[in-house]
Amino acid sequence: MRLLITGGAGFIGARLARTLLARGQLGGRALETVILADQFPAPPDLAAHPLVQVMTGPLLEQCAQLASLKLDGVFHLASAVSGECEADFDLGMRSNLESTRALLESLRSHQMAGHAPVRLVFSSSVAVFGPDDAVPMPAIVTDTTLPTPQTSYGIQKHICEHLVADYTRKGFIDGRSARLMTVTVRPGRPNGAASSFFSGIIREPLAGEEAICPVAPEVAHPVSSPRATVEGLIQVFEASREAYGGRTALNLPALNVTVAQMLDALAAVAGPAVRARVRFERDERIAGIVARWPTGARADRALALGLKPEASFEDIIRQYIADCQALPTAAQTLKGLS
Amino acid sequence: MRLLITGGAGFIGARLARTLLARGQLGGRALETVILADQFPAPPDLAAHPLVQVMTGPLLEQCAQLASLKLDGVFHLASAVSGECEADFDLGMRSNLESTRALLESLRSHQMAGHAPVRLVFSSSVAVFGPDDAVPMPAIVTDTTLPTPQTSYGIQKHICEHLVADYTRKGFIDGRSARLMTVTVRPGRPNGAASSFFSGIIREPLAGEEAICPVAPEVAHPVSSPRATVEGLIQVFEASREAYGGRTALNLPALNVTVAQMLDALAAVAGPAVRARVRFERDERIAGIVARWPTGARADRALALGLKPEASFEDIIRQYIADCQALPTAAQTLKGLS
Repeated sequence: MRLLITGGAGFIGARLARTLLARGQLGGRALETVILADQFPAPPDLAAHPLVQVMTGPLLEQCAQLASLKLDGVFHLASAVSGECEADFDLGMRSNLESTRALLESLRSHQMAGHAPVRLVFSSSVAVFGPDDAVPMPAIVTDTTLPTPQTSYGIQKHICEHLVADYTRKGFIDGRSARLMTVTVRPGRPNGAASSFFSGIIREPLAGEEAICPVAPEVAHPVSSPRATVEGLIQVFEASREAYGGRTALNLPALNVTVAQMLDALAAVAGPAVRARVRFERDERIAGIVARWPTGARADRALALGLKPEASFEDIIRQYIADCQALPTAAQTLKGLS
Repeated sequence: MRLLITGGAGFIGARLARTLLARGQLGGRALETVILADQFPAPPDLAAHPLVQVMTGPLLEQCAQLASLKLDGVFHLASAVSGECEADFDLGMRSNLESTRALLESLRSHQMAGHAPVRLVFSSSVAVFGPDDAVPMPAIVTDTTLPTPQTSYGIQKHICEHLVADYTRKGFIDGRSARLMTVTVRPGRPNGAASSFFSGIIREPLAGEEAICPVAPEVAHPVSSPRATVEGLIQVFEASREAYGGRTALNLPALNVTVAQMLDALAAVAGPAVRARVRFERDERIAGIVARWPTGARADRALALGLKPEASFEDIIRQYIADCQALPTAAQTLKGLS
């Protein structure tokens, strides 16, 4: 099968590509081509893989070409992140809404040319949820909680969920939307996402660096590891339409934790000296965005598909350490571990 | 104040314009100009009114001009209707989604040029509600029911609700979205809306013509009169932000009736001979669309604003008859009344 991953050079996209290339198949069909579309160059290991094709550039400009690629499947992960979308409204509308529309149109033209509807998994986000004055948000959001997003990023993600649902209903695509929980621990540097600190407060101390937590220790949030997130995306792709159920988005499994619990887990796994590298310094902008996010999530439909959250945040930290140890950069990324 | 009504030559738009011109003010500010934008020409009485300016053409093309009009308020009613959007996907996306985006962008550029955010009421629809396999729809939908629209029209309306909410949150506009119930009795000819028969089964018998009801008598639906609908739009415009509450859409008040109750009311008001002009002939396309609509609605936020539904469907029929009697065409439209 010919598979497209948008945002394929990003952290989740590249991890998904590596996981799928190692499996060799998706939904029982052998992978023939994996196209990684991204505005940034693909990681060298992926770019060098014989099955991988790289498309570098803005997705909006690439979409005209996509119809000719005879795709069988798409993971649509490309997105501007929440902090960027709050700071630059036009960027978010272009990168998240218009690009998704262009992608869906290119897949529709493929279907209308007589091909089977392309199966597509859209990566939505727990950020679709937020408290509106007229609609208080439950402490734990579920698959059927009314999304009233309080960020442009959340609005754009939720709008795209509805577009995916309607293109699917019309038979143009076979689409599914999975809401990613906040993925932690992300490697590398902080990005523009308001949720970036959920990785930073673990990653930086492990690298021997100080980390600043911009919100209070009591702040609770649904998180997921990179491995569980990638597994969730694959299972949602492979599910039958009946098993997926309906056309609305589903939540991927979450581990609901507080910042304090995350730091306790860091102390338990890496020792109190590592934990001590985190200090609290409130950032009003970040705290304001995070205050409008849910404090926990439930994922009944994903559980029915056999997906599970991690058992503990300690497991998530150990997973990150194991991932780092497998790379030549381990000496840097784990410098803080004695 | 300078007011724009998109879809201003349509049934609700023209009625809203006449109501506002008769009042002379909106939200306590004297009306100076009422601009009626529509793809069709405005009714002669409105076109001849000294405060009215007419813009005839596609909204999408008109939006570039709008920023220069220094508007103080907008009622955004222009829309392709549900049947059209199911038959022509591109038409719906262009007329409902792209046109609304262009309108919002023009209002945003006005605000960014230093003007106060323009107050806007967006006419959404009860058609945002529908049953998804993963999300059963309650018998009575409320302001906080999760919309999982099962038509392109409903999807587009719901997406626009979210755009209005985010443009409002960002301070670009002062927007509100009101979900119109099915408006009945509409005068004139049947239109492309799947709900058109909810007017036809009253209007045609009163005009002495046979009417076909394409759904079963047990079909229940939330309806509203033209007068109550226009009153609802005005009250939502005039409400303070605090009274409106939040940024999500609210339901306008509904009278929840079955087709059988509508026809009983017709017999009570106009006699059994008029009622006998309606026969049942199932139309699978129409019945299929209507089966995915809610059977009733509750409108708690609108009630809190002081809005009320009609007390009975008899009242709605009497209102239609009184409206007809005020016009020179009464001899035609009420030919069926002995």
